[in-house]
Amino acid sequence: MVPHLVTALSGPIDDLEQRVLDSMPAIERWFRLEWMEHTPPFYSAVDIRNSGFKLSPVDLDFFPGAWSCLAPDMMPLAVQSAMAAIEKICPEARNLLLIHDHRLNNSFYLNGLDQLMRIFNMAGLNIKLGSIDPAIEKTQHFTLQNGRQLTIEPVQRTKHRLLLKDFDPCTILLNHDLSQGIPGILEDLHEQYLLPPLHASWALRRRNKHYEAYDELSKRLAKLLNIDPWLINPLYSFCGELDLSKNADCDALEGHVDALLQKIRRKYREYSIDEKPFIVVKANQGPEARGFLTLRDTKDLKNLHLIPNSNQATPFKGELILQEGIRTHERINDVVAEPVVHMIDRYVVGGYYRVHAQLRDDEGLAAPGSHFVPLAFAPQAHLPRLGEAPGEHSPNRFYMYGVIARLAMLAGSYELEDSDPQGEDFE
Amino acid sequence: MVPHLVTALSGPIDDLEQRVLDSMPAIERWFRLEWMEHTPPFYSAVDIRNSGFKLSPVDLDFFPGAWSCLAPDMMPLAVQSAMAAIEKICPEARNLLLIHDHRLNNSFYLNGLDQLMRIFNMAGLNIKLGSIDPAIEKTQHFTLQNGRQLTIEPVQRTKHRLLLKDFDPCTILLNHDLSQGIPGILEDLHEQYLLPPLHASWALRRRNKHYEAYDELSKRLAKLLNIDPWLINPLYSFCGELDLSKNADCDALEGHVDALLQKIRRKYREYSIDEKPFIVVKANQGPEARGFLTLRDTKDLKNLHLIPNSNQATPFKGELILQEGIRTHERINDVVAEPVVHMIDRYVVGGYYRVHAQLRDDEGLAAPGSHFVPLAFAPQAHLPRLGEAPGEHSPNRFYMYGVIARLAMLAGSYELEDSDPQGEDFE
Repeated sequence: MVPHLVTALSGPIDDLEQRVLDSMPAIERWFRLEWMEHTPPFYSAVDIRNSGFKLSPVDLDFFPGAWSCLAPDMMPLAVQSAMAAIEKICPEARNLLLIHDHRLNNSFYLNGLDQLMRIFNMAGLNIKLGSIDPAIEKTQHFTLQNGRQLTIEPVQRTKHRLLLKDFDPCTILLNHDLSQGIPGILEDLHEQYLLPPLHASWALRRRNKHYEAYDELSKRLAKLLNIDPWLINPLYSFCGELDLSKNADCDALEGHVDALLQKIRRKYREYSIDEKPFIVVKANQGPEARGFLTLRDTKDLKNLHLIPNSNQATPFKGELILQEGIRTHERINDVVAEPVVHMIDRYVVGGYYRVHAQLRDDEGLAAPGSHFVPLAFAPQAHLPRLGEAPGEHSPNRFYMYGVIARLAMLAGSYELEDSDPQGEDFE
Repeated sequence: MVPHLVTALSGPIDDLEQRVLDSMPAIERWFRLEWMEHTPPFYSAVDIRNSGFKLSPVDLDFFPGAWSCLAPDMMPLAVQSAMAAIEKICPEARNLLLIHDHRLNNSFYLNGLDQLMRIFNMAGLNIKLGSIDPAIEKTQHFTLQNGRQLTIEPVQRTKHRLLLKDFDPCTILLNHDLSQGIPGILEDLHEQYLLPPLHASWALRRRNKHYEAYDELSKRLAKLLNIDPWLINPLYSFCGELDLSKNADCDALEGHVDALLQKIRRKYREYSIDEKPFIVVKANQGPEARGFLTLRDTKDLKNLHLIPNSNQATPFKGELILQEGIRTHERINDVVAEPVVHMIDRYVVGGYYRVHAQLRDDEGLAAPGSHFVPLAFAPQAHLPRLGEAPGEHSPNRFYMYGVIARLAMLAGSYELEDSDPQGEDFE
């Protein structure tokens, strides 16, 4: 069931794995106490990278797709987690409206929606799929590869509610990251629960807020594990708003790049790592799938017009953030692979490997052309087996991945509290 | 993975299965609302009987053993449920003390304890096994068949706490039904959580209170399903305190038996069931494992000296309760089998078949000599597959078993509220 992992189960990451396993009850208790104070995101997915010497999350998605990639044996866990999530937010819930994004021509996305609907149906909800796309004016039916039917209906709006014809939901679940902005139809829904909240969408979300929160939390977990936080946290540098048509801003960016590469080199020397550091340049806003630029040197900055949100013809203008590049040492049949961990509420409910035959180990695998190996997190995979040597046992490795994914998810919870326009100040 | 079920997947029970499946979201919502008002038992196990025309729980155990019978693939679910259970009762919990019962010479029981400890360890607790048996004066080590070690230490008592040497738990988990009475060492532990509470033990528990609660709840679920509650509820009759050395009490018992058999016959006629009704006579107190007497006729009453708690030489004295007998139509390789469903908190975490080669389908299979088929509830088994015909698909059948088991568990919750000496009056 577990694909063959070529290098993942060896290397200095073993020491980290041993510490994580040894500290399991303390880690679980720490999370438990955190969840007394903080609300986990309704659902989330975290991309993890294991470079052999460090293990870090590189992206947190508040609107995960790819639900059909979870191993079928993980379904009971997903259903149970969905029950827990619903119970907390709206125990009297009866009808749930799921809002899809723009990928209706992607059968893989549709299969994922279908799986997500099955999960919430089995958790005890009537669930229907609604469209906020103005182009969808009437009910559409899609037949999936497995023969199941998916029905999509255009949403209707009353003063304070979003509905389908003959279906009045108490809760609306967004599977749409709203990266093009928040449509008016989703605003002022004061009578319904809207999950995740609008400030989790890429219309409002800022990457640096997440990195800040993760930075703080990784230090706390590192202290508990008695390790250098760098082993679980990529260095980063927030450049703020830049207009790369201005020389001063280009110089500022070059300064950020230099300083960050410098910091990474220092760490590499400390750990005797004989690799060339690199940096990933990301727009501070917008989904990872848009692709990012990898820099090894300030010379590479000339390619900056390639970064997202930039018009290929004109220089980039907007907020930028730099992140320490983490190579992925995971391979499936010699192809670069990156684990993705799915969570509902505070529980890991499965995961899969994202695999990309054309990309190198220092590139983002979420680019078009990637495919998925769903069975990676086999049943029991996120349960550790104590007493086995580190690196020898996939479940122990996956337990560690689950811990790091939950840490990033907890950072997502801090981030959402911090950015909540209605929120109290938690400081 | 699922053993061959000879008669279980056919017969009039199919209509019930269809209704349960059709009502799944409503059922799950109903449970969800109940759990807002009521606290589920910390853990429990329910024996289910499927007679082909009705499906009923016949016993609820607040101190379940046999944890090693759960399918290994269900472990993540058990761990997640244990997390939820702990979180609710004592989120800051660090150390958990598990108290075993008298079955230390039973390797099957020891394997179950070990499995239970693994579940709570993975849920984030340091767990140790303590003994309240005064005969155990020093630490003992047991090597299990799988090579794992089990260490049992005698408990120590301070004024308000139960401890082991160098281990101070905040929560004590009883796996001991205290059917011989409550030892002083467990009283007045006001600084620690004692789970399940003492009034769940057979020292204080009374069967009729459970049947009353189940009677009420089965009516409510039956209304939701639009079925006759009898299809999921055995008729019963509580005889109260009887001294069978007195003729008047023997006559009273005979009256109860006659009246109950009469009621069952009437139901059998209503459903055109061509079987001979029978009654199970149970002491109102004490675990099922002690064995009960099966009656087809008042003539069988002469065997009443065989019922539990009675000295074989002297007539029975104590509270008696009569329950409609439910034949089990389940067979594994031609041998009578009875499903058992395990729960932690409000979640089904697995189950198994109890099998007894020497017993008939109208006898209690919990008698000595029974063995277990652990893989019956295979992964995903308690998740229904909608759209399949009733009776054709084991998972759908198991989902229905899970619903009935949870209904009995909810009755257990009502029962414990009702019998709680510190409780408010919930009426």
